Amino acid sequence: MTHRRTLRVDYDKTTSVLYVVGSELHVNLNRSAPPTSKFFSVKCTPNVDYTISPPPQGASHLSPIPLTGSSVLLITMSHASQHENDSKLSVQYYGNNKEVMGKAVLHLTAVEISLDVDADRDGVVEKNNPNKGSWKWGPNGHGAIVLVNCDSERSFWKKTDSEQDFISTTTDLKDMSLMVLRTSGPAKLPQGYRLTMHISQGDAESIRVFRSRSSDVVNNTLSHTIFYKYFVKDFPLVLSSEALSQEVPYLGGAGEMKFYVEGLRFPAKDFNGLITINLSLLEPICEGIPETPIFTDRVVFRVAPWIMTPNTLKPVEVFVCSTSDNFQFLKGMRSLVANSGYKLKICHEYMNRGDRWMQDEIEFGYIDSPHHRFPVVLDSPRDGDLEDFPYNDLLGPDFGYVTRVAQRKDVSSLDSFGNLEVSPPVTVRGKNYPLGRIIIGVAFPTATKGRNMTKVVQDFLWAQKVQEPIALFSDWLLVGHVDEFLTFVPAPDRKGFRLLLASPDAAYKLFRGLQNDGHGEAKLFDGLKDEQQITVNELLSDENFEAENNYVQSCIDWNRDVLKRELGLDDEDIIELPILFKLVEDKKNEYRAVAYYPDMVNMIVLGKNLGIPKPFGPRVNGRCVLEAEMCSLMEGLGLSCTFIDDFSSYHKLLGEVHCGSNVRREPFDFKWWNLEM
Amino acid sequence: MTHRRTLRVDYDKTTSVLYVVGSELHVNLNRSAPPTSKFFSVKCTPNVDYTISPPPQGASHLSPIPLTGSSVLLITMSHASQHENDSKLSVQYYGNNKEVMGKAVLHLTAVEISLDVDADRDGVVEKNNPNKGSWKWGPNGHGAIVLVNCDSERSFWKKTDSEQDFISTTTDLKDMSLMVLRTSGPAKLPQGYRLTMHISQGDAESIRVFRSRSSDVVNNTLSHTIFYKYFVKDFPLVLSSEALSQEVPYLGGAGEMKFYVEGLRFPAKDFNGLITINLSLLEPICEGIPETPIFTDRVVFRVAPWIMTPNTLKPVEVFVCSTSDNFQFLKGMRSLVANSGYKLKICHEYMNRGDRWMQDEIEFGYIDSPHHRFPVVLDSPRDGDLEDFPYNDLLGPDFGYVTRVAQRKDVSSLDSFGNLEVSPPVTVRGKNYPLGRIIIGVAFPTATKGRNMTKVVQDFLWAQKVQEPIALFSDWLLVGHVDEFLTFVPAPDRKGFRLLLASPDAAYKLFRGLQNDGHGEAKLFDGLKDEQQITVNELLSDENFEAENNYVQSCIDWNRDVLKRELGLDDEDIIELPILFKLVEDKKNEYRAVAYYPDMVNMIVLGKNLGIPKPFGPRVNGRCVLEAEMCSLMEGLGLSCTFIDDFSSYHKLLGEVHCGSNVRREPFDFKWWNLEM
Ligand SMILES: [Ca+2]
Ligand SMILES: [Ca+2]
Ligand SMILES: [Ca+2]
Ligand SMILES: [Ca+2]
Repeated sequence: MTHRRTLRVDYDKTTSVLYVVGSELHVNLNRSAPPTSKFFSVKCTPNVDYTISPPPQGASHLSPIPLTGSSVLLITMSHASQHENDSKLSVQYYGNNKEVMGKAVLHLTAVEISLDVDADRDGVVEKNNPNKGSWKWGPNGHGAIVLVNCDSERSFWKKTDSEQDFISTTTDLKDMSLMVLRTSGPAKLPQGYRLTMHISQGDAESIRVFRSRSSDVVNNTLSHTIFYKYFVKDFPLVLSSEALSQEVPYLGGAGEMKFYVEGLRFPAKDFNGLITINLSLLEPICEGIPETPIFTDRVVFRVAPWIMTPNTLKPVEVFVCSTSDNFQFLKGMRSLVANSGYKLKICHEYMNRGDRWMQDEIEFGYIDSPHHRFPVVLDSPRDGDLEDFPYNDLLGPDFGYVTRVAQRKDVSSLDSFGNLEVSPPVTVRGKNYPLGRIIIGVAFPTATKGRNMTKVVQDFLWAQKVQEPIALFSDWLLVGHVDEFLTFVPAPDRKGFRLLLASPDAAYKLFRGLQNDGHGEAKLFDGLKDEQQITVNELLSDENFEAENNYVQSCIDWNRDVLKRELGLDDEDIIELPILFKLVEDKKNEYRAVAYYPDMVNMIVLGKNLGIPKPFGPRVNGRCVLEAEMCSLMEGLGLSCTFIDDFSSYHKLLGEVHCGSNVRREPFDFKWWNLEM
Repeated sequence: MTHRRTLRVDYDKTTSVLYVVGSELHVNLNRSAPPTSKFFSVKCTPNVDYTISPPPQGASHLSPIPLTGSSVLLITMSHASQHENDSKLSVQYYGNNKEVMGKAVLHLTAVEISLDVDADRDGVVEKNNPNKGSWKWGPNGHGAIVLVNCDSERSFWKKTDSEQDFISTTTDLKDMSLMVLRTSGPAKLPQGYRLTMHISQGDAESIRVFRSRSSDVVNNTLSHTIFYKYFVKDFPLVLSSEALSQEVPYLGGAGEMKFYVEGLRFPAKDFNGLITINLSLLEPICEGIPETPIFTDRVVFRVAPWIMTPNTLKPVEVFVCSTSDNFQFLKGMRSLVANSGYKLKICHEYMNRGDRWMQDEIEFGYIDSPHHRFPVVLDSPRDGDLEDFPYNDLLGPDFGYVTRVAQRKDVSSLDSFGNLEVSPPVTVRGKNYPLGRIIIGVAFPTATKGRNMTKVVQDFLWAQKVQEPIALFSDWLLVGHVDEFLTFVPAPDRKGFRLLLASPDAAYKLFRGLQNDGHGEAKLFDGLKDEQQITVNELLSDENFEAENNYVQSCIDWNRDVLKRELGLDDEDIIELPILFKLVEDKKNEYRAVAYYPDMVNMIVLGKNLGIPKPFGPRVNGRCVLEAEMCSLMEGLGLSCTFIDDFSSYHKLLGEVHCGSNVRREPFDFKWWNLEM
């Protein structure tokens, strides 16, 4: 839509006017005409165009036109001036008898001004995109994207780059969104006119803008070691919460000035992610009076959300802890990861201080834009002895870090990120979730007491919007994590994955079948020293244990119903794994569930290879029936099962393989901005 | 969408099941079949319906059906049970040779449960509206509405009703939204089952729910004077931030229980206005284990926004202050209001303590729902000597009160509500604003310093959403209020209104015409003692004064351009009034504008009668030319001008008629929930 500006024109005066190409000057002729004027005529130099409204009837433009109360002159110019005042327009007023009453003269200078961003999302800043001032989701959408600069270019004295208000190395520029101010016009703006860039106070909490002093610096090859003061000087801070408005130089002729926009915070409950940057041309009035903005160009950015990666995405790195007692587990993991062709990263004891729950302290995700993307670790407010690991070991160049700070008293076991998972892409009653849906576990909404994931983390997850979360019921578990009863594995058919659920009913069915086939004396926990063994017959005869497992099955079934509804799953999309639980009394005299034998659903998924807690089930013909059942359920999907002995070092401490590991995965091919919202 | 629930069924057992009509029980037959079962058959009593998935091929339902891994039994019942366990269903399992392997028996009890609201917005709570669980704008939309209970049923020891967590009189019930729990079934729920109503912690900040102990109390005629304890007992508090979940009685047979929902806060930056109330049926497990919700019904409410009333709406009451020195003004207002047929309310000096700026302390608006509506005054953080007036004099039964609390240091003259206005309904580039758009004045966004309306009030106005605000530039004025340069008057044609703008250019044109016609010696301020008079010739010869007014015109033109764009106005929708300003130096040595003679645009609009500051302009043939011009501009619109002398008691104190008055108006006929968003 054309920017219209009302222009006052006095007769018997020469008015100098600065015009911005693309706008329209709107002169109310009657308002400023000499008294008793009845006609007017207009003349101008060739590069000025004008129209008269209402259009004059009949007569040629050269003969005087009747002046009415609503006579308006609309002036435009098609290109920038070479010199100040190089264009002219005059309006002559006439009386009743066409005698001249007065003449208004305009000296016009045209400039082109465009604040440009990558609004079409192809990684290149195009010129004056008509949609740059708004933001629309979807493949036919538009609007620029900015990343939270949450990585750290520095490896010592580390902090996230967004915490410092200067640019210390050119590598940091690629994390920012390029914004280009393109101007064209005379060598200088007319006396007193200025360009200013400005943002609102609210937006200043979410972004910062730097500019490049030298226009070619982006493509240079400066060494990273040059003292950062050099860059501070070369990339002055333009906008921040300390400076909402700042003058920017006008380059003269045809110029391009580069700006760099960095995001400071992720979308939040009170921040939808959209920010606006304005560039205004100011007209001087006089000392003591604010300059008037006569033209404003606007660009809109959306801060990229934090995105989680489901098990169906290709792994990059696997993380585990090394402790004094987990040699057996590490050996299994090392071999699985090596055979799968991925990288194993071990967090050593000086850093983990005995905290082996690599899953629980962190969740890997990423942020993405058309110009750049990088992984971002979400650090849990759990803050066990692993708490320094994400900041100290992971944060670095192109590895971002984000956390939410919670009151100590608000943090529970449900804040561990074994309780934060994400589904593969799904379509639910016609609605697409091409990035899947986040899954967390909480207490029943009906519970008057119970544990929940802390509000600050829940608010963060919901505010990202692109993987709309589902809250399951996990408070029935002593540890209380969704990864104790569910996981997702890739599948060649149907929706591209299966949901795996722990199922006491499936376990009972399997064990009753064993008994039926005459294997009732086969023993669970066979070969484990320090572990009480139990026969299938004994297990099946314990009615109390059966009642506990019926309860567990009903809890999982409740979640199963929610998952079917919220992920649009059919029964055929779900595989139930034979897993038993037992109830234990917690400190508050409430009964909650823990896995009875290693919880096979708590597995690590590396492409087609699954690392599964070795269940130590009853053996028939030397083969563990639980392993055999697991393999048979998975082999139809082309998945290969590796059983990892985590019994003493994880299972007995109430966790398993998944709890003790973490996987950084490739980002989605699907771009979040192509979501239809 | 049908609510599906997975049901566990053990063979060789009888399971009692509570079923909710409208849901579907989903039994995985294979999971709970005896080992080596190969076939099954199903029998049931007449009021039970079932289907088998996948549908059995060929054979009749009576002969055994092959059991597959994915055999599922789907059970429904069409109406509530009279007695517990009055319906039955059994599944018999068979082996390879059709020998019976086991039998599972279900004893079924059906109940109907529906939490009902006025989701179709006709003022009546219908039964089980399929859309009650979501909210959609527009005439084809749906979703219930709740009012903030911001009036006060009490006239002494007043506070807003939402500040107390009990119901003190039945009159308060009509401010709340009725919600009905309809149940049908046996006299009692089976042992251990309970109904519970629950909300999230976030929603509990925004609503409270009471229930009626006696089901007929709404229609009774209890006197208001009965001690409130009576009502507290009869309307127990069910949900609040202290109780997010509470059991509600099951009435037995066909019962209806009434609930009353009250809103506690208006939509805000971090609150979109939507809240959800849940009603769950809980199944007992055993001591120490939370009960499982087996059915949840949900209703969604939107908190009604605060709505402003433009000048084109019919007045109800006019408010002015009486002070020791405003007799002349009061006389004029009394006569204008009486002649217009409206009520004049005078705020006396003991209350106003000399603060005469009735416009500035408050803004009248209203809240609306299908069941009830009432006026609500927004109290400005300005807090002059009138500060107690809105709470003490206005708040009362069916007169609500809302305010935003700001830090003293954040409050400026721009927080007075002469700087908060609203346009009549407009359509802007195809987008309808049937409730108009709010207009406020701020500093230029480009200004590095300058005054603004405080953020808490701006955030409140934007969060209401239904009258999307427009921010104008008013900081060029010393007082800084948009009502110093604009107003709206009704018109019989075009868009139903005209925008009136102060215009120095129009004044200069008028005065130059006077001079031209030989009236250059006519005097401004004629007849005012204590006031320096000035001739038209003298005025026109002051070049400095002309430059100041050119600046003022450019400020108003800037706003004019914004208003044309944001309200979709043409030049023909705007009338420019001949008004001059002068610049004065403020405490910070900056120059800002005040009206030179009474600022006629600062008028009161009462239907077709305008109360206009008497301008004391130059007289020609005994008639003030400014009054004559004003009358001539307005008479084409069928409007009648009354000039009110506010010179000494308002104009000299930098305000006029509009600043010194306020009008409560009828609400819009248009319902805000019919907006297309
Ligand atoms: Ca960086
Ligand atoms: Ca996780
Ligand atoms: Ca009330
Ligand atoms: Ca107002």
